[in-house]
Amino acid sequence: MGALEEIQYKPIPVRTLLVEMKDLSELMIDLAYSSALFHNTDLARDVLELEKKVDNLALLLKMNVMIAARDAKDAKDLLGVSLVSSAADKISDAAADIAYIVLHGIGIHPAVREAFKRVEEQLGRFIVKRDSILSGKSLRELRLASRIGVDIIAIRRGNEWIINPKGGDMILEGDILIVRGTSLGIEELGRLAEGNLRKLED
Amino acid sequence: MGALEEIQYKPIPVRTLLVEMKDLSELMIDLAYSSALFHNTDLARDVLELEKKVDNLALLLKMNVMIAARDAKDAKDLLGVSLVSSAADKISDAAADIAYIVLHGIGIHPAVREAFKRVEEQLGRFIVKRDSILSGKSLRELRLASRIGVDIIAIRRGNEWIINPKGGDMILEGDILIVRGTSLGIEELGRLAEGNLRKLED
Repeated sequence: MGALEEIQYKPIPVRTLLVEMKDLSELMIDLAYSSALFHNTDLARDVLELEKKVDNLALLLKMNVMIAARDAKDAKDLLGVSLVSSAADKISDAAADIAYIVLHGIGIHPAVREAFKRVEEQLGRFIVKRDSILSGKSLRELRLASRIGVDIIAIRRGNEWIINPKGGDMILEGDILIVRGTSLGIEELGRLAEGNLRKLED
Repeated sequence: MGALEEIQYKPIPVRTLLVEMKDLSELMIDLAYSSALFHNTDLARDVLELEKKVDNLALLLKMNVMIAARDAKDAKDLLGVSLVSSAADKISDAAADIAYIVLHGIGIHPAVREAFKRVEEQLGRFIVKRDSILSGKSLRELRLASRIGVDIIAIRRGNEWIINPKGGDMILEGDILIVRGTSLGIEELGRLAEGNLRKLED
């Protein structure tokens, strides 16, 4: 084992932690399937990074649950939270299992391709370049879903991840966008992020 | 531990086993969320039953993978299958964690409700009674999606489960239908299965 970060207790509502764990674990499954189908090592690395985040959230949640429970009734009420947190943790481990296939050059067996092929919509992953017209705009302004049929399902900004971003969220230079949509829409978004396509039709 | 069934080797293509494991594990997550949100113990019991099925499929898959691999190259090719199978197994365990909440009367903490509330469409679970007009008809004939906005995502027939049934699949008396759709459509399907509603508008 390498040097591990010390876990730091922070008082965070269990609700916030649980919602984040669940959303992250579901995003990870999508990223993992997509990384396997399209042999995308960047997506696979994102999955492993997110797995560490989920592990960390699980520990924070455990501590906050301990502190929140003052008596037997609280403890019973919080048992459900603890079980759902452990479920999200297992789902994130499952996503990591799949990411390993891609990162260890194992190759996608036809049986795996068959199992994942129901994933109809493709995912894309793009870095927003300096010249991109996306930079500095909010999702509400861009209206990407109605204009090019693409949904931004996550924004990675350095070490931070914004999952299911809202209309008010901004896109900034250097952001990594994880998007879902038709292959045509994704290709268009890639050119917008790159700065090669400089306008967005209505 | 009670009396456990002895595991019986059957030669089944790994592709078939893997696709079934993945489909079952994903169905289980949907059933588990729904069982928790609507405190539905029948759905929770279905989840635990399906977990046993997935465990069994995982063992069968392990044996078939062993037999399929004759040399190092095969073994490496089949490693991906093994990792995806272990992923599906973890996802099914996660679903079982959630089902336990419902079956052990733990109560749904507001944080859990918050985490699951994104599940927009409701699930329903209905037994097809003798008088139901659904009985003896194929899904293609019924066209439930276009007529009442409801999708049949699984049919349980005794111990057998048909996951993502196709147009040619028939509904029989005694089947348990797991359906997804709007609350209105689900309510209507319930009355059709019960035999209280005897016609389907176009």
